Amino acid sequence: MADIKFRVKAHGENATKTIVKARHFEIVIDEPADLGGADAGPNPVEYVLAAFAGCLNVMAHVVAKEMNFELRGVEIDLSGDLNPARLFGLSYDDRAGYKQIVVRIKPDCDADEATLAKWAEAIENRCPVSDNLQHPTPVKIEVRKK
Amino acid sequence: MADIKFRVKAHGENATKTIVKARHFEIVIDEPADLGGADAGPNPVEYVLAAFAGCLNVMAHVVAKEMNFELRGVEIDLSGDLNPARLFGLSYDDRAGYKQIVVRIKPDCDADEATLAKWAEAIENRCPVSDNLQHPTPVKIEVRKK
Repeated sequence: MADIKFRVKAHGENATKTIVKARHFEIVIDEPADLGGADAGPNPVEYVLAAFAGCLNVMAHVVAKEMNFELRGVEIDLSGDLNPARLFGLSYDDRAGYKQIVVRIKPDCDADEATLAKWAEAIENRCPVSDNLQHPTPVKIEVRKK
Repeated sequence: MADIKFRVKAHGENATKTIVKARHFEIVIDEPADLGGADAGPNPVEYVLAAFAGCLNVMAHVVAKEMNFELRGVEIDLSGDLNPARLFGLSYDDRAGYKQIVVRIKPDCDADEATLAKWAEAIENRCPVSDNLQHPTPVKIEVRKK
């Protein structure tokens, strides 16, 4: 298959609020009050978990269909801990991002445990967001003044 | 500083649409028609780029303030290519996620090029989403039937 290109255009409305255009959609990002924002939307690292949840849901269904079991529904809870010290420039001891992401997938189905173990393995291996988080993703940053 | 825990709860409304709760916010994720969805929202990998944009905006302002230059505004465009072949189980030659993410940051400011180079380096080093994408992030997946 050919590669697909995805793109977004964003601007900072202020120091914490970002307006992102993804095709015909607008995504509002902000920080909660205790992180210095006005809480106009979920914050960036909450969107990372949300993106991961959305990708896992797609994969959960794709793989269940391949494995011929009915997935009547799926709930996915995600959490992660991070230390904001590096972000604020206070300490470089910890990494900037999530130290670990814990995912709990609750499928509503009749598949047995062995089937679900294979299902989860395939989901994890083939989910784009899982891959970009678990393995290094090259990032190229260009800066050009307006 | 102490670690901060972030969490979201999601459920699949169907095979492509995911409803995510992040605190008091609801995030709707779907796939466009050409990827099998009803296009009810941005798709998971667009949310990854959006999250990255939001995090870079915060860092752009935090670091500009530390470096004592006025950041009047910032535009951030992001794009990435991925091959959906692994997702669909058609080929395992390519990785599942973005092969590279290209970020273009356009600050509106009077800082010189040398200052902006240091600014960009600090942003990249201290941005949580940048860290989670560029460096391996441990993911623990637990599956438990409903």
